[in-house]
Amino acid sequence: MVRTGSASVAAGPTLAVVAREAGVSVPTASKVVNGREDVAPETRRRVTEALDRLGYVRRPRFDAAKTPGLVDLVVHSLDTSWSGAVLHGVEAAAHDAGLEIVVSAGLTRTRGARPERGWLDKLIARGSSGVLFNLAELTASQYAWLEQHRIPFVMIDPVLEPPPGVVSVGAANWHGGVTATEHLLALGHERIAVVAGHQRKMCSNARVAGYRSALASAGIRHRPEYVRHAGFDESVAHRRTLDLLDLPEPPTAVFVCSDRMALGVYQALAERELSVPDDMSVVGFDDLPEARWISPALTTVRQPLSEMAATALRLLVRMMNGDRPESTRTELSTRLVERGSTAIPRQGSGSSG
Amino acid sequence: MVRTGSASVAAGPTLAVVAREAGVSVPTASKVVNGREDVAPETRRRVTEALDRLGYVRRPRFDAAKTPGLVDLVVHSLDTSWSGAVLHGVEAAAHDAGLEIVVSAGLTRTRGARPERGWLDKLIARGSSGVLFNLAELTASQYAWLEQHRIPFVMIDPVLEPPPGVVSVGAANWHGGVTATEHLLALGHERIAVVAGHQRKMCSNARVAGYRSALASAGIRHRPEYVRHAGFDESVAHRRTLDLLDLPEPPTAVFVCSDRMALGVYQALAERELSVPDDMSVVGFDDLPEARWISPALTTVRQPLSEMAATALRLLVRMMNGDRPESTRTELSTRLVERGSTAIPRQGSGSSG
Repeated sequence: MVRTGSASVAAGPTLAVVAREAGVSVPTASKVVNGREDVAPETRRRVTEALDRLGYVRRPRFDAAKTPGLVDLVVHSLDTSWSGAVLHGVEAAAHDAGLEIVVSAGLTRTRGARPERGWLDKLIARGSSGVLFNLAELTASQYAWLEQHRIPFVMIDPVLEPPPGVVSVGAANWHGGVTATEHLLALGHERIAVVAGHQRKMCSNARVAGYRSALASAGIRHRPEYVRHAGFDESVAHRRTLDLLDLPEPPTAVFVCSDRMALGVYQALAERELSVPDDMSVVGFDDLPEARWISPALTTVRQPLSEMAATALRLLVRMMNGDRPESTRTELSTRLVERGSTAIPRQGSGSSG
Repeated sequence: MVRTGSASVAAGPTLAVVAREAGVSVPTASKVVNGREDVAPETRRRVTEALDRLGYVRRPRFDAAKTPGLVDLVVHSLDTSWSGAVLHGVEAAAHDAGLEIVVSAGLTRTRGARPERGWLDKLIARGSSGVLFNLAELTASQYAWLEQHRIPFVMIDPVLEPPPGVVSVGAANWHGGVTATEHLLALGHERIAVVAGHQRKMCSNARVAGYRSALASAGIRHRPEYVRHAGFDESVAHRRTLDLLDLPEPPTAVFVCSDRMALGVYQALAERELSVPDDMSVVGFDDLPEARWISPALTTVRQPLSEMAATALRLLVRMMNGDRPESTRTELSTRLVERGSTAIPRQGSGSSG
């Protein structure tokens, strides 16, 4: 009550002054403050100057003296090492910013990755200071709702390309796909397959695009039958690997777009009594703890999940203070972590690419 | 402001009526409501009857119509599969109860397992409805503080024996130690060692006690040199295992008090080129995901972490409503999960116990 009340009272007039100063409408000033891109450059300049001149800072939605700010983190699941890394990064950065995080796995209780019904209403009721979405997929109306209620939010590794102006943080997925594939090429592999995630998911498509670019630059022809989608599911990855092994010309190496799927790939290879890396080189993606525990330890592309999450929190704090990130999409770099699952192909097996 | 205000206003008079009805002081009535045990049985009976007669329900600290209740979960770390399982259980049960959870890893930022300074003040400022502590160790003054501010709390797997009246949920650790050891005895092992956690930690001591009881009932003499403490640390477990292997009469099997420490045990055995389970049988404790990923997959004692966490949340909700759990210590059962890390001892090696 106090929070939502003070919010609506506090944010209004200040922004109105800015709008008057800049000679624009309040909604337009709001768009600039909220980092929306559908504003003419000249208008944006005038508003930004007015913001600076007046030293505009959006007042927090909470009485910091009495209650620490609450930021919402909405995740897919809480019992994966992926979510653990994200939580770890968000919580540490929130603590540094004097904020506390409300965690909900609302996304898991719905079809797809959409927040459950009524959840957004709880946000406004509680006067949430801001929201971080992890692996989420919002509807147009949900985006509009957040915009309309002036609740700042940042997407961590969004499932789909978010609308213009929405701030998101992810990993350099395309580059990661290139790195993984170039590593296998450097070892002498030419028959390189990829076990991908969902065809419609941004992160997976970027990794596959990187794989294809690396093959192309190496002058190796693309084989559509070497690209299998397993929806980031361990057991589907298991089946797709068996499909690859049943090809007339099976691959000698496979780039798997997540460590969890790599577990399924390992199982399939073990069933066919094929050894990693002698019979098949495997490169994963993520560098979750499980990559170190399986044997041989998995060579994988590390994406800095905790750092991505901490970056998202810090961007959110700036937005909560009325600041606008320069870029709406921040990508943190990925790097190859070499372990025991990759080696040179068996004599001759790499030659017939 | 609203929350803390309404809390003090709401809780007072109602409890006063109960006290008058029962003919006791308000503090005494409060003790009964808060499940304290330092109340005479007769007094407790009178107060309980008065509570029932008046249908006393402690009013929530929040306006449920406007804001969903917030419950605090204080954990040690957020990036372990252990904390993932706990979070998963708490969040699901909280959602069913219409509550949301504020997660903080405050325990990690302090010596030992104690909440950091100022953290408790944030709780009262925010008007937290209740607190769950995971693997925490509170000081006497912190217990008193929570009691005094009438903030209900439940301990999940407390590090030390909590004071009388404090509600906690844990696993049947002693029984788990018995099960693990009896499994190794049944396979024919007699030289069975244990890699324990902290000497001062309740859960570890209970597991070791179970190990000793099982050996005693089997009429096998206790060898102090077979009991090594590794403080639930993977690398320390690695060193302690090497110590065990250097004994004049090394064990043929080892019961490791956590799956994470079992990873260190596996590494030590690999260094000495000893194979699991042929040269050494290994039983873990927890059944975290990593137990399935290492090879051979780890035979371990499963403790139902998510269920423990959900049970703790449900107990907390009852206490938030002024109800009193029948028992202050709830233990959920453990069970052996047989995988590939245990087998019969090599010929003769079990004989000389």
